[in-house]
Amino acid sequence: MPNSPHTYKDLAPPRRLLLGPGPSMVHPRVLRTMSTPLVGHLDPEFLAIMDEIQELLRWIFQTDNALTIAVSGTGSAAMETAIVNLIEPGDRVVVGINGVFGTRIAQMVTRSGGTVVGIEVAWGQPIPLNQIAHILQTAGPIKAVALVHAETSTGVWQSLEHLGPLCHDHGALLIVDAVTSLGGVPVQVDAWHIDACYSATQKCLSCPPGLAPLTFSQRAQDVLRNRKTPCQSWYLDCTLVADYWTEGKRTYHHTAPISMSYALREALRLIHEEGLEARFARHQRNSQALLAGLEALGFALVPPAKQSLPTLTCVSLPEWLDDKTARSTLLHDFSIEVGGGLGPLAGKVWRIGLMGESSTFESVMTLLAALEQICSHVAPSHSLGQSITAALKEYSAFAHP
Amino acid sequence: MPNSPHTYKDLAPPRRLLLGPGPSMVHPRVLRTMSTPLVGHLDPEFLAIMDEIQELLRWIFQTDNALTIAVSGTGSAAMETAIVNLIEPGDRVVVGINGVFGTRIAQMVTRSGGTVVGIEVAWGQPIPLNQIAHILQTAGPIKAVALVHAETSTGVWQSLEHLGPLCHDHGALLIVDAVTSLGGVPVQVDAWHIDACYSATQKCLSCPPGLAPLTFSQRAQDVLRNRKTPCQSWYLDCTLVADYWTEGKRTYHHTAPISMSYALREALRLIHEEGLEARFARHQRNSQALLAGLEALGFALVPPAKQSLPTLTCVSLPEWLDDKTARSTLLHDFSIEVGGGLGPLAGKVWRIGLMGESSTFESVMTLLAALEQICSHVAPSHSLGQSITAALKEYSAFAHP
Repeated sequence: MPNSPHTYKDLAPPRRLLLGPGPSMVHPRVLRTMSTPLVGHLDPEFLAIMDEIQELLRWIFQTDNALTIAVSGTGSAAMETAIVNLIEPGDRVVVGINGVFGTRIAQMVTRSGGTVVGIEVAWGQPIPLNQIAHILQTAGPIKAVALVHAETSTGVWQSLEHLGPLCHDHGALLIVDAVTSLGGVPVQVDAWHIDACYSATQKCLSCPPGLAPLTFSQRAQDVLRNRKTPCQSWYLDCTLVADYWTEGKRTYHHTAPISMSYALREALRLIHEEGLEARFARHQRNSQALLAGLEALGFALVPPAKQSLPTLTCVSLPEWLDDKTARSTLLHDFSIEVGGGLGPLAGKVWRIGLMGESSTFESVMTLLAALEQICSHVAPSHSLGQSITAALKEYSAFAHP
Repeated sequence: MPNSPHTYKDLAPPRRLLLGPGPSMVHPRVLRTMSTPLVGHLDPEFLAIMDEIQELLRWIFQTDNALTIAVSGTGSAAMETAIVNLIEPGDRVVVGINGVFGTRIAQMVTRSGGTVVGIEVAWGQPIPLNQIAHILQTAGPIKAVALVHAETSTGVWQSLEHLGPLCHDHGALLIVDAVTSLGGVPVQVDAWHIDACYSATQKCLSCPPGLAPLTFSQRAQDVLRNRKTPCQSWYLDCTLVADYWTEGKRTYHHTAPISMSYALREALRLIHEEGLEARFARHQRNSQALLAGLEALGFALVPPAKQSLPTLTCVSLPEWLDDKTARSTLLHDFSIEVGGGLGPLAGKVWRIGLMGESSTFESVMTLLAALEQICSHVAPSHSLGQSITAALKEYSAFAHP
């Protein structure tokens, strides 16, 4: 029996305030629901739960798409599902690359045998829509345009409202990564003519990680059913997975993650109770207050102000603040998690998530108060309380415009 | 807002006795653990939990393999991980095909660009090892031999103890599907010289579905690192996933399913407390008693007696018993789930799982008592109590040999 000590202690992780790029805080009702004893994945009672999940996912995606499901994996599994089902060897795909997740999409396109027509811009900048239009008009057949709606590595909020019809005019599908946007800012799959949109449970849906919502338009389904080659993934093959999710078929494909499905249903139910408009306003309000506080401390917003995500604020550090030391103090002395930078932004920025249950007045006040303490030690000229004051001013302005 | 009614009720699935091919019953300690608030997937406290999970997985796989992880998906995701990482286009793979899961392996090999050298035998029969030896000796270069240790669709317990060295003598890897065996019957990865072995959480580990244990030998890792082409899956690419699981590296790949990891740790801890030998004996004892009871009712074992799994009993129905009616009565009147047949066995057999927490004296007695009731209605000559008596006799014989 290799490497096995005699006893393992009770699980007792510390209590954290999760303000990183995900997972976000999970509502006690969702946690409690996961303790529900299991039924089988083909039990009629479970199939009814799946129906409700589909109904709620369609509502949150704002779509009537029949093929709307939760992929049995995390957000990257849903990204791979979109790519490997819609892209075949030889297909050319326009990919907006301005951070980790656009880069990841491009890697998946390549691994699917597709050719990437990349639009690369500096991390922190949005993808210019006129460049996409230019490529569609001049570069010959394009199978799909893939964009990240909310780039988790930079906090950029990509506009894409008018892109769908343009793609369709040129015979291309529109694929959208909504991992850090769904449930936090508007995502209107039908109104924006998106063909494939996916997300993850652990961001603005405030459910533990392990499932990933995905929806395909009729146009995407037609592409899927007219493939020349089989999808390279069996596990993620939507022609097979869809049969399990379709009433009247319910063909066994793989065992659905039962407890995670319970959790997702409860998380979606909480969102349904709050309402999308109220939820989006809450995310907007808290992020504006946070940003005002951060700016008072000397942090500076990375993306252009109008394209900064309310769900994830990406800020560069004041030069007198050391990234690793300050994040370590936040985690160990205050039990607060924020995210560091990735790639070219490593060591230079923080990514602060206010997503779902993490987007609260308490989160903003607690984080700013902790940062006040930390900054007052390393920058003695710092006058205590100024970030809290700035944030409170922002709250008042937002509540009484 | 399409298709959304105004309210969703509290989740209240019925209480089931899960005696199908999985998911199995989950211990209350595992359910409770899933309610633990989350920490981040890069939190040092979570990395320590991952270390413990790896340690316990190595123990249950009986291996020292460094690359021993939980794949972020269900059992089929782990199957696909093994295949897409080890098989490249043009590789020839010997696959034992005697049920759904051997067939699935073959499909995945094909989708990876490999060529299947299939050994097809009737569903319910084991794969003859001498056929594998013959192919290895005569059929030219073989990249891998893939076998299902516990065929969930037929209840066949495949022997493979001496196959590893034979594969290695001919330059082939040995890939083993242990989805319905790991934690229920011995799986000795190192002693049997298995190169890739995978399982699922919802069978004999009695954890909810959503993660899938996987281990690669050094030989498999060498094959992986010397690939000519990149793995076609980004999500399941073990060269990337392994870096997240490796101490000192911990490179972010995708967000680990935190709550499911909590659950898996607790499920493994329960197995560790019970001990493998005691656990295997429990599975053996309960399955023998169940089988004696089923035979007394007129059911007949499908696989050869010596190769019938203690974790999943596959029996053909007496001709006077209608499959759908009887399973529906079991589910709706007794709240007991058993599995029906798949493929050529549909309508003809039942698959009764006694896995992990489902493998108890109460499960056996409750199921047989329910079947006594059902059988007494459709076969009036049936004398009540005979299956219980037969099962009890078997328990006594097992306890006092």
